Amino acid sequence: MAETASNRARIAVDAMGGDHAPNEIIAGSIRASEELDVDVLLVGDERQIEAYFQHHPRPKNVEIVHAEDVITMEEEPLVGIRRKPKASINVAMDMVKQNRADAVVSAGHSGAAMASALLRLGRLKGIDRPAIGAVLPTMLAGKSVIVLDVGANVDCKPKYLEQFAIMGTIYSKYVMGVEDPKVGLLNIGEESTKGDDLALKTHELLSANERIPFIGNAEGRDVLSGQFDVIVCDGFVGNVLLKFAEAVGGIILQILKEELPRGIHGQIGSALLKPNLKRLKQRMDHAEHGGALLFGVDGICVISHGSSQAPSIFSAIRQAKNAVDNRVSERIQAYNDHHHPSPKVSAVAEP
Amino acid sequence: MAETASNRARIAVDAMGGDHAPNEIIAGSIRASEELDVDVLLVGDERQIEAYFQHHPRPKNVEIVHAEDVITMEEEPLVGIRRKPKASINVAMDMVKQNRADAVVSAGHSGAAMASALLRLGRLKGIDRPAIGAVLPTMLAGKSVIVLDVGANVDCKPKYLEQFAIMGTIYSKYVMGVEDPKVGLLNIGEESTKGDDLALKTHELLSANERIPFIGNAEGRDVLSGQFDVIVCDGFVGNVLLKFAEAVGGIILQILKEELPRGIHGQIGSALLKPNLKRLKQRMDHAEHGGALLFGVDGICVISHGSSQAPSIFSAIRQAKNAVDNRVSERIQAYNDHHHPSPKVSAVAEP
Repeated sequence: MAETASNRARIAVDAMGGDHAPNEIIAGSIRASEELDVDVLLVGDERQIEAYFQHHPRPKNVEIVHAEDVITMEEEPLVGIRRKPKASINVAMDMVKQNRADAVVSAGHSGAAMASALLRLGRLKGIDRPAIGAVLPTMLAGKSVIVLDVGANVDCKPKYLEQFAIMGTIYSKYVMGVEDPKVGLLNIGEESTKGDDLALKTHELLSANERIPFIGNAEGRDVLSGQFDVIVCDGFVGNVLLKFAEAVGGIILQILKEELPRGIHGQIGSALLKPNLKRLKQRMDHAEHGGALLFGVDGICVISHGSSQAPSIFSAIRQAKNAVDNRVSERIQAYNDHHHPSPKVSAVAEP
Repeated sequence: MAETASNRARIAVDAMGGDHAPNEIIAGSIRASEELDVDVLLVGDERQIEAYFQHHPRPKNVEIVHAEDVITMEEEPLVGIRRKPKASINVAMDMVKQNRADAVVSAGHSGAAMASALLRLGRLKGIDRPAIGAVLPTMLAGKSVIVLDVGANVDCKPKYLEQFAIMGTIYSKYVMGVEDPKVGLLNIGEESTKGDDLALKTHELLSANERIPFIGNAEGRDVLSGQFDVIVCDGFVGNVLLKFAEAVGGIILQILKEELPRGIHGQIGSALLKPNLKRLKQRMDHAEHGGALLFGVDGICVISHGSSQAPSIFSAIRQAKNAVDNRVSERIQAYNDHHHPSPKVSAVAEP
């Protein structure tokens, strides 16, 4: 993550990834280029991207980078990534590797984005396994929690969760602006004697690590309480939890739609409440909260939901910019250099 | 689970267990004795229970069974259960063991209830590990899903999950009245190649077992979709999911309370919507859905939430009655006798 000449974050956006690619991806990128202090590189099929700009003016800080291939949702990620070096996600990662961009945003195949990041950018020193971190709203307005891992790894070892805790703490502190982040271990009870083998051993590691602000176990009911800023877990349980949480918002909104307008009072009441219901939807909508961040690779990658439309892409670009501006990768690297100094190996990958 | 003389289910209720014991427990029991065709045995300190009945008439089908001790929430369950044989939960289990009751309902220490059930009733033949099953509402009105295990076991083996699937199927079919229950394996993707080691191996077992109506993996987003009637998982992830689900309903209701009455339109609208909001609350409230069932022990045990008030206790007693009336334990036993016949060992525990 070298400095840019202008100090403006340069975000490579996979224009071909996601259910609404390329149009919604481009629309979100344009908005970001106008409202945020960023340069956007739209990576993908240039004919399709240019077709869009025949009807919309292209801002000066939006550039097109041609990529002739795409990884489809049906492809086995590792196979696709290897067989299609010119796929948009690979070309976007190459932009970061070549220091032509600072971050990648993709709403495409998340497994492919992860595989491409790993193969092309590599892991940060001291990190055994990259993790996906998801930011969720809590019941305290304006307060979020980052949960990691939400799906990059299953069958984790305790030391992976320790590394997740370090990365989450850095993100919480420097990107989310939490002065004293509180870290929790997702578990089935508050006591240190509770949990499966992984939780018991991780609890010991987190308690012993003075630089992790570990305050104890977080139960399922505590995830959205706002008591914790960072929650670490195995990618299996994290993924189940994230997908459940994403779905539950939609389900509640649907039940609201069914139950609120019943009867004549209900119809009038619901009509009066329309603006308030919209605000409620925003508070629960994951589109407002951006994408998931891939932690532990040598570069910033934001993995957006496959269903992302322009507002989600805008949020994801803002999230990537914040991670770049606040030098998340350098801080994780610096932490690990400090704790596991490896003599003679340069920390700088690019000459 | 022998037949009762009158064929009325006899439910032993732990009158001392839970945050609101004994008054709310007794109140829920009285309602059950009046509205359901059951006999209730209130097990606990007879002075406290009789004190309640100085101000309320005691229905004929409510009996008091004295127990001089209580397991507190602070006690280590196994230690407490062993050190206090006269604790209310132990006495309630003994009633079932001695065929003086058909089921136990407790809102006390759930670990203690589980330990007491295991030690006093024992496991059903063919079941390696009892599991706790929780019934959750789905987005389809009137349709529920049973998730097991939600906390009895961590570090499960694939064959435990196979047994959970069998028990869940029997419950869904005979108690919840689902003609063709659909069983899912909680996992992080739809494909059979997805998941951790446990999920991969369990997927094979479930696919190969012709008597389990397995339809594939259920992701976090599918849990409340209504597509599945039974979902099996390790007790770690199940517990996290259940506690998250229980909390999220309350969180959403709180956000509703914050957001809906904003502004003058909001205030009028909210006032008009009061009855509809109440119905919404009922649809999401776990009190409406009873307790969790302990599957795989030789008897019916319903473990109610510690915060249970009278309505939850009523629901839990109804749930216990339904399990008794529909002979859940016998059916699980019969399934296993059929599949693992063990010659020379009598299936009847009591002479």
